[in-house]
Amino acid sequence: MAKAYIFKNRERRTVYGHPWIFKSDIERIEGNCEPGDVVDVYSYRGKFLGRGYYNPRSQITIRLLTREQEDINADFFYRRIRSAWEYRKQFADLNSCRVVFAESDFLPALIVDKFSNYLVMQTLALGIDRYKYLLADILDDIIKPDGIYERNDVPVRELEGLDQRKGYIKGNFDTNVIMVENGIKFFVDVANGQKTGYFLDQKENRAAIQPFVKGAKVLDCFTHTGAFALHAAHYGAASVLGIDISEHAVEFARKNAALNGYEDICKFEVGNAFDVLRKYHKEKNTFDVVILDPPAFTKSRDTVENAIRGYKEINLRAMKIIRPGGYLITCSCSQHIEPELFMDILYTAAIDAKRDVRVVERRSQAKDHPVLLSSKETEYLKCVILQVC
Amino acid sequence: MAKAYIFKNRERRTVYGHPWIFKSDIERIEGNCEPGDVVDVYSYRGKFLGRGYYNPRSQITIRLLTREQEDINADFFYRRIRSAWEYRKQFADLNSCRVVFAESDFLPALIVDKFSNYLVMQTLALGIDRYKYLLADILDDIIKPDGIYERNDVPVRELEGLDQRKGYIKGNFDTNVIMVENGIKFFVDVANGQKTGYFLDQKENRAAIQPFVKGAKVLDCFTHTGAFALHAAHYGAASVLGIDISEHAVEFARKNAALNGYEDICKFEVGNAFDVLRKYHKEKNTFDVVILDPPAFTKSRDTVENAIRGYKEINLRAMKIIRPGGYLITCSCSQHIEPELFMDILYTAAIDAKRDVRVVERRSQAKDHPVLLSSKETEYLKCVILQVC
Repeated sequence: MAKAYIFKNRERRTVYGHPWIFKSDIERIEGNCEPGDVVDVYSYRGKFLGRGYYNPRSQITIRLLTREQEDINADFFYRRIRSAWEYRKQFADLNSCRVVFAESDFLPALIVDKFSNYLVMQTLALGIDRYKYLLADILDDIIKPDGIYERNDVPVRELEGLDQRKGYIKGNFDTNVIMVENGIKFFVDVANGQKTGYFLDQKENRAAIQPFVKGAKVLDCFTHTGAFALHAAHYGAASVLGIDISEHAVEFARKNAALNGYEDICKFEVGNAFDVLRKYHKEKNTFDVVILDPPAFTKSRDTVENAIRGYKEINLRAMKIIRPGGYLITCSCSQHIEPELFMDILYTAAIDAKRDVRVVERRSQAKDHPVLLSSKETEYLKCVILQVC
Repeated sequence: MAKAYIFKNRERRTVYGHPWIFKSDIERIEGNCEPGDVVDVYSYRGKFLGRGYYNPRSQITIRLLTREQEDINADFFYRRIRSAWEYRKQFADLNSCRVVFAESDFLPALIVDKFSNYLVMQTLALGIDRYKYLLADILDDIIKPDGIYERNDVPVRELEGLDQRKGYIKGNFDTNVIMVENGIKFFVDVANGQKTGYFLDQKENRAAIQPFVKGAKVLDCFTHTGAFALHAAHYGAASVLGIDISEHAVEFARKNAALNGYEDICKFEVGNAFDVLRKYHKEKNTFDVVILDPPAFTKSRDTVENAIRGYKEINLRAMKIIRPGGYLITCSCSQHIEPELFMDILYTAAIDAKRDVRVVERRSQAKDHPVLLSSKETEYLKCVILQVC
């Protein structure tokens, strides 16, 4: 096996547990290796640091699989996936869950989601893409799904020199799957929905709204396919209005409402959340509960300032249309907006809205999306339940 | 009513929603007022900022009750307490809960806890102490408890020029109360237990350990009267060992275990957690789950550095005795150890323990201890569930 040597004094991140080795960290490679091969990583002084797959095309040139001198083979991947599955078995409703969360499950760049009896997988780096069919066999063996679908139609694969593609890996099935989350049924368009078809990371946060929506008039901004909106109806809201900019998403949300018999409680409209919030404020149209679950306002450090303004604005506008004592459930999935920064944004919004605001609960991503203590990148979701007094 | 004027450019904290006005913020008082009286607060330019009680003996000279020009009378307190109670009704198991959390319920310095059918109250500032019997009448009317006990035997009252005292305010009852938390019975010594008799702020965190303790060998350090330990047993742990430095606490924990029929599963020993953790590491005695719920290692900014060392040390030692894949449930109730700092401490502990550690869940104080967005002081509890791989 080839050996990659890290520059002097550059091994700290690796020793501290971070699985990424950047191009700029690598002093030299000894031995032959092709892109996608597994290599050993050594410190400048020749100390073994770990073993991972190598791709010179990517800035993340090595992604560590292990810190042990163990073989990377079918048995290795079997143990890793079984361990990920056993972890979920402890707490997740296994009808819908994230089965493998990449680096956080010590399987860098591998994502596996389960929707009812179907799995959707993404292999987002060359090193793991090579094992795609082996991994599908292992998943089949451990989880016994009715089929596996590949959603590798994501631009990030191009950084690895991989093509974008999607399609069946195992089985041949209707890609409009019905799954259950917190007792509510959802259509998941495994072939065409965003990412793998559905955002599972909010599952526990959606359940957490239960105490605050009973009998309430609820506004769900950025409703997408209606996930928070349907939860509000399920937990007893009197009325729910879901807003999304996408006509397609709104149609889907309506189908999901009908699927659960909530079409009388949940109404959906196409609209820009910023405009809608401003309009309701002008019209003095107030709500008991407002939910904000926007897409990431920034995906890079460079645009954090704009994102801060965006988050502040929607939260400020939402606070203004919440009746005294009502609730704001507000989220950010931007990894670059760290938890304390998000709290600061909410504080400045409360100041400008001239409202006393209480933090009822601070939440993060669901437990089947664990965070590596050594890798801040793996923590990205914030969900805060506020009471606006 | 007397008027307190704030120095020029010193009103910002107040305008932003913080309820405390320090001695050094006040330029002058116009009109007569006695310590404990309610006064109006104005900015330098004469803008009304709020109304609160005044005590020149305290560094926190004014605690705002309201930002409106409303009368502070029985009706005012009735509305505040009813609102606090309605908030808890939405989510709290009302057998045991915090009914009023001081500043966070817009009733500065008033604490009310409910244990079964009894209330325990603390009036920790002169301004609120004056209303003690009125507040007890209101609590009696709204909650209809069998009795109310005063636990004003706390040194912080002396900063306000108040004496330390405890005793019955309403009724005359056995102060050894049996209450229920998450389905588990606990003796609460309302007259002699720490603070009001029991730490209710961990209620939801204790419930959150459920998925991780089934069949497990559990070590509960700083067990106090056995709350986490009994929860572990209740959720199916195979064996639980609780450690506390206090002989009295350990006796109490044993009584609580017997009360629930868990005396075979839960064992308790008197010991220093630091020493015990070191000893088990030496003896290679490992656990599936370790719980760390220490008392605050610092109560002031000046001793934060020592506290950081203390937290790092116990967490490092705990990580070393957890079997691969086991869990660490680790808490800090030091207000001066902010959430991100606590995460950093855990990260450095993981580095030194040479373990890959995953964050399963980050939690805070129970929802009946809400946090004021404008007052960082009201957020103090951190509880992190980690998997030690």
